[in-house]
Amino acid sequence: MCSKVILFIADGMADRPVKELGWKTPLEVANKPRLNQMAATGISGIIDPIAPGIPPGSDTSTFALLGYDPIKVYAGRGALEAMGIGLDVKPGDVAFRCNFATVDEHMTVLDRRAGRIANEDASGLSTTLQKIKLVEFPRTRFTFKNAVQHRAALVLHGAGLSSAVSDSDPESVGKRVLEVEPLERTKAAKQTAHLVNTLAHEFHKALKKDEVNVERIKRKLPPANVVLFRGAGTVPLVSSLQDRFGIKPACIAAVSLIRGVSKVVGMDLIDVKGATGTPQTDYMAKARAAARALSKYDFVLLHVKATDVASHDGNAKLKIDVIEKIDKMMGYLLDTVDMESVYIAITADHTTSLLTRNHEGDVVPVAIAGPEVRRDDVTEFNERTCAKGGLHRLRGFDLMSILMGLIGKTKKFGS
Amino acid sequence: MCSKVILFIADGMADRPVKELGWKTPLEVANKPRLNQMAATGISGIIDPIAPGIPPGSDTSTFALLGYDPIKVYAGRGALEAMGIGLDVKPGDVAFRCNFATVDEHMTVLDRRAGRIANEDASGLSTTLQKIKLVEFPRTRFTFKNAVQHRAALVLHGAGLSSAVSDSDPESVGKRVLEVEPLERTKAAKQTAHLVNTLAHEFHKALKKDEVNVERIKRKLPPANVVLFRGAGTVPLVSSLQDRFGIKPACIAAVSLIRGVSKVVGMDLIDVKGATGTPQTDYMAKARAAARALSKYDFVLLHVKATDVASHDGNAKLKIDVIEKIDKMMGYLLDTVDMESVYIAITADHTTSLLTRNHEGDVVPVAIAGPEVRRDDVTEFNERTCAKGGLHRLRGFDLMSILMGLIGKTKKFGS
Repeated sequence: MCSKVILFIADGMADRPVKELGWKTPLEVANKPRLNQMAATGISGIIDPIAPGIPPGSDTSTFALLGYDPIKVYAGRGALEAMGIGLDVKPGDVAFRCNFATVDEHMTVLDRRAGRIANEDASGLSTTLQKIKLVEFPRTRFTFKNAVQHRAALVLHGAGLSSAVSDSDPESVGKRVLEVEPLERTKAAKQTAHLVNTLAHEFHKALKKDEVNVERIKRKLPPANVVLFRGAGTVPLVSSLQDRFGIKPACIAAVSLIRGVSKVVGMDLIDVKGATGTPQTDYMAKARAAARALSKYDFVLLHVKATDVASHDGNAKLKIDVIEKIDKMMGYLLDTVDMESVYIAITADHTTSLLTRNHEGDVVPVAIAGPEVRRDDVTEFNERTCAKGGLHRLRGFDLMSILMGLIGKTKKFGS
Repeated sequence: MCSKVILFIADGMADRPVKELGWKTPLEVANKPRLNQMAATGISGIIDPIAPGIPPGSDTSTFALLGYDPIKVYAGRGALEAMGIGLDVKPGDVAFRCNFATVDEHMTVLDRRAGRIANEDASGLSTTLQKIKLVEFPRTRFTFKNAVQHRAALVLHGAGLSSAVSDSDPESVGKRVLEVEPLERTKAAKQTAHLVNTLAHEFHKALKKDEVNVERIKRKLPPANVVLFRGAGTVPLVSSLQDRFGIKPACIAAVSLIRGVSKVVGMDLIDVKGATGTPQTDYMAKARAAARALSKYDFVLLHVKATDVASHDGNAKLKIDVIEKIDKMMGYLLDTVDMESVYIAITADHTTSLLTRNHEGDVVPVAIAGPEVRRDDVTEFNERTCAKGGLHRLRGFDLMSILMGLIGKTKKFGS
């Protein structure tokens, strides 16, 4: 019989001991019998997603947990976001994450999210922007698309482009929009910076007079009169998971960054109604979709963002609540899938500290349950107990080899 | 006093929990008081022979356990097998593993082992084959030698050879013998492929009419009318163990692959009467030879193949039985050698799963006993208990440094 794998990544779920929780972590405090069952019936360990002490991004860590060396493959966030919202990014293209924002007449940022503009308004504005012609740059095309609320992405298509350019986003209110600068002394970097500055100017001109913004001002809403650019990136050239392991992989994730990473490595994206990437996501709908996906796929990445959101907000109670919902998802999976042929792994892509509200470089816990794992003595799933597990301390990119080894998808070296 | 080391490698001894053994591994079920004594009086750990999740070959893993980076040194199986049966393989030579086999008039394989041809018959045929002249290739010589039963090796000596050629062995009955193809677009690869195809043809012609085969047909035995080639390889260029550690090393192994690896790294081969590489080997004769060898050598590699054989056959009972025999070998060593000056390490070169009957990428257990090891709390030798040991999780090539460090043979780095 053919074995399959579910890899469950809870974004930023790992934490440091917190004073308000009696110097325990949210994982230690939460009521999570099914995550504990994973540890008790499986093998546990700890993972350095990137390297000891290095705070991972969700993009770099997800690459690592999918078996890619993040140092080698990472080429910026822009292209991943753009692919994650459905844009086509080809080798040579350069992509940016974008925000609709509000500026005053001096280009000083008043609101980095244009009042978290509604999707319909952003969509109307995007249609306007896409019509702009790059008269000065006949060899370059662009695609601009809005995502949820103020979020959007820009892809530059053409030759002679470079991702070595700075951001126009000043990252805080009260500061002026920045000029994009080349970060290398190359013609491509200079040209790309010039191109983005030109686009920024044309976008601003068009947005100011757009009917959508005229209406917003009437409704006392901040006009989305500028687009901020950041995270210039290209698409990494990697072998797909199919080619490397001969598996059919799928991803269930709401956030565009993880969707982008998954697309780069050749996974099918499964859309789930009600999955939002927020603490209000439909947790159980995602769990059901993951269990269902096993009928068609060998490997399912199941990603939940809300633990990270709670940590970035410094909200311990919410983080514990989300962990308890993740526990119910795991319960559904353990009760539904055939645990004599399916391996389930649970981990976090990084530590997000409730105290610092940032990603931190601490190790994350991992547990793998399934028919033929060498069960260890760990009976609880958290940062401290998993450190005593049979997997010991792994690098992020080792996890996928271990999972693929369990289902016979790694190639023998030697004879 | 000068300390010495015995490294005991039980081929494929590690396993996954097996349903028919109540989800335990053969090592967990076997009665093995002396292996447990190793753990109880020593320090234990787990080893990734190659890397997490990657199934090792016995050749690559043995290189690693002897302290060589297998990724860097491995150059195919052919030369190792050839050296293992006593052929001389020089840098630049290309060697193949060979089988005497039986084909019909359409070159379709009827028996990949020519009825496990007797050594005397194979020997007679080899003498015939060795006389063939390579008229078309004046710069190349070859050596052909039979080993046990149908097994043999071919070495091509000369200039302009390449190991980047495919196998002629179709690896299954009912398929036709394959043409050897170049795997690179180089002159050397093309020439080598042509040379092997020519030899294959000449061998076939000579074998068909050889007196040995005429006699075999009369005796209703399948004629060994073809030689199949596979595993083209060259000899890795490595520093010897003598040069690296200043030790005098010896190897006790029956299987030619391990003998070949040992020769490459400069070990003397000790022949033991009754050692066969099968479950019927004379286990105690090998143990006695290892203990005796310490009078002349600083480092003795003691290898037993039968655990792997049992796993490839899916025979749990036999595997347990072999482990119990290995336990008796260990008992002899512990009772015989001076444990105030000798370090003994026991490990497996890889996991061979009773269920999948294949090499798997799981870690293997290791225990080191000897006068000055830092004893840990592990009291039983198996996959799960050793994971709690003081050595933690090592890479294969780290083990030799640790052993050499214990006997003062590693060089200080810095001052």
